[in-house]
Amino acid sequence: MPVNLTAPLAASLLDIEGLRIGVTEAGIRKTNRKDLTVVLMDEGASVAGVFTQNRFCAAPVQVCREHLALSDTNSAGGIRAMVINTGNANAGTGEDGLKRARSTCRTLAEKLGLAPQQILPFSTGVIMESLPHDRIAAGLDAAIGDAKTSHWLRAAEAIMTTDTVPKAFSKQIQISGKTISITGISKGAGMIRPNMATMLGFMATDACVAPEAIQQLATELANGSFNCVTVDGDTSTNDSFVVIATNKAGNTPISTWASADGAVLKAAMMEVARLLAQAIVRDGEGATKFISIQVDGGKTSEECRKVAYAIAHSPLVKTAFFASDPNLGRILAAVGYAGIDDLDQTKIDLFLDDVNVATQGGRNPNYQESDGQLVMKQSEIMVRVVLGRGQVSETVWTCDLSYDYVKINADYRS
Amino acid sequence: MPVNLTAPLAASLLDIEGLRIGVTEAGIRKTNRKDLTVVLMDEGASVAGVFTQNRFCAAPVQVCREHLALSDTNSAGGIRAMVINTGNANAGTGEDGLKRARSTCRTLAEKLGLAPQQILPFSTGVIMESLPHDRIAAGLDAAIGDAKTSHWLRAAEAIMTTDTVPKAFSKQIQISGKTISITGISKGAGMIRPNMATMLGFMATDACVAPEAIQQLATELANGSFNCVTVDGDTSTNDSFVVIATNKAGNTPISTWASADGAVLKAAMMEVARLLAQAIVRDGEGATKFISIQVDGGKTSEECRKVAYAIAHSPLVKTAFFASDPNLGRILAAVGYAGIDDLDQTKIDLFLDDVNVATQGGRNPNYQESDGQLVMKQSEIMVRVVLGRGQVSETVWTCDLSYDYVKINADYRS
Repeated sequence: MPVNLTAPLAASLLDIEGLRIGVTEAGIRKTNRKDLTVVLMDEGASVAGVFTQNRFCAAPVQVCREHLALSDTNSAGGIRAMVINTGNANAGTGEDGLKRARSTCRTLAEKLGLAPQQILPFSTGVIMESLPHDRIAAGLDAAIGDAKTSHWLRAAEAIMTTDTVPKAFSKQIQISGKTISITGISKGAGMIRPNMATMLGFMATDACVAPEAIQQLATELANGSFNCVTVDGDTSTNDSFVVIATNKAGNTPISTWASADGAVLKAAMMEVARLLAQAIVRDGEGATKFISIQVDGGKTSEECRKVAYAIAHSPLVKTAFFASDPNLGRILAAVGYAGIDDLDQTKIDLFLDDVNVATQGGRNPNYQESDGQLVMKQSEIMVRVVLGRGQVSETVWTCDLSYDYVKINADYRS
Repeated sequence: MPVNLTAPLAASLLDIEGLRIGVTEAGIRKTNRKDLTVVLMDEGASVAGVFTQNRFCAAPVQVCREHLALSDTNSAGGIRAMVINTGNANAGTGEDGLKRARSTCRTLAEKLGLAPQQILPFSTGVIMESLPHDRIAAGLDAAIGDAKTSHWLRAAEAIMTTDTVPKAFSKQIQISGKTISITGISKGAGMIRPNMATMLGFMATDACVAPEAIQQLATELANGSFNCVTVDGDTSTNDSFVVIATNKAGNTPISTWASADGAVLKAAMMEVARLLAQAIVRDGEGATKFISIQVDGGKTSEECRKVAYAIAHSPLVKTAFFASDPNLGRILAAVGYAGIDDLDQTKIDLFLDDVNVATQGGRNPNYQESDGQLVMKQSEIMVRVVLGRGQVSETVWTCDLSYDYVKINADYRS
């Protein structure tokens, strides 16, 4: 059961002019499930991606990077389509995996009258098994035939693996009198510790964004959203996050994010990106609680994030949340091993929502375990650590560790 | 059920002349369990310790460091006793915790006619609760009265927390015609990712070791044993490892480990230290399998250990071992995010025991899943990763992640 997250209604998602989505059942791993998605873009879209930092990155990630580097939105050579399969990650597949990813791009390019480098491929699923690119090729006509502007929810469903609900959000804003729509989808529930992006996240807007400004937008959105979540600390081989501006809304093209229009658009897209990223945690494998970990009073962002991730990844902390057990010394222990060499434990304060659990590195004399217990029973919990070293704050989002996490991951392939 | 580990027989453990152990039930957290141990040493023992790198280190760890720094084995001021309690870690307890640890040392020193700095205190158990030092004080007479050279097994039992079996090993060797005995005990099953030492490990020998040589021995033993194991990646606040030479065996005192006698003694003590460290993994919370992770072909020890720990800490890898599921791509993913920036995935080979699973970063064409499955079903598994970057190898030991890990840690305090 995801934590305070329900499937979106198709009607709640905004179409993005200039972008159509088609889905089909290609039988990639299992039958009777939507597992192949194509995203078709009109000429002239601005496209950027952010990808996993895992050195064992999957073949499609390597091909995406190549194709984005080759693409030139100002000519007819820009990115025009994406092809996404579930059921197989095409990772840990060596040279043969690269060939299969390229073959998929080539086949789709031929069907659409494009060059292969105008296609971005994405795969998610089991690692180290050969991608059945023949089945993907056989399904492409049906996916293309299904393509409609209104198919965002179908795509959100088709990219799911161990996700229990599809993840999709929209937002509408006004920029200089023009109505701008933003829609995004994401997937992922395990092997989640994005390092530059989540497993799969796609966002599009019809706003006009200059091609030279889109990569910075994608990077900043990823850093403020997908790069702040973790389920199990496992950075996937396939993490990919793509931002598309179809350039259809008629606004003056945004070329800098410091402009008024740029700031408004970025803030709105960040809101959607955070909802998408948090949705992954809410639907984390076995999750029963959504936990925000805010670290205040650090000298640098890096040290705040080290502490937040040490807490977020501690199996002892995560099981205590699952049990609603205010065994909060485990949080202090995680702060201590987070890797800040000159940490002074006598300056540390710990809060659970508004309850001051520890002060100056020791138990707060006024702390009542019953107060901690009440917070621990909530489905949404804020852990706040004050380091007393500086002025920087960072927040990451995570979930608890339950029996079901073990069950899901012990049974995943069966 | 620990993995291939049974409780030792008291008769299998060697007495160490010059060192007596007494145990009692002090009712520190629960009644009817041995929870207080004193170790009494004759004058003239060489003693060294290695302690947690957790910056939130417990009060007793801070006091141990102080007392070891003050001690002078050559005068009458050397370390003469240790006092160890379970049920309460005296960590996350601030200034008050330090006072209570010092008070325990003072009380024991008075009873023994020693100075407080001749006592080393150790605590293990729940974090962030006040140490009941009055109950410890009340139990000291009974513990002292119980002291006998033959009580190693009683101590191994009395220091257990979530351990299911006591951990103790002995070994006898000859050095220059003298018979030397070595005995050690350890405890720990969760919050185990020692960083300089395990939760608690104590080793003693009757060999004569010069005081100036004992710290190097303790450090090298820790690095080759307790610093190579992990259960859940959580570095405890209380990790402590103490090595004692009672200097009773009559051998020429060892002043350098490069000598023939030194090399023999160190090798024998390392053997016992590794058994003690591995016993912690075998009895890891919820463990059903003992897994050795060997990383070959690295440029440095540090990068080999990074890769080994990334694998050993991955919840996805650990749950796959629990399920006996050869979902080995998860291991490649962990190698990829271990933090080696210039890792070339096309040079990576992966073996499961003798089965070559992946070669040149992709699935070995000759690999049969049935072969991997056979190895995964074993209770002892060797994972070997070849990085293809250099000549260095490192090994760490870990266990799988089962339902019972979650159950034990969700229920720990109840």
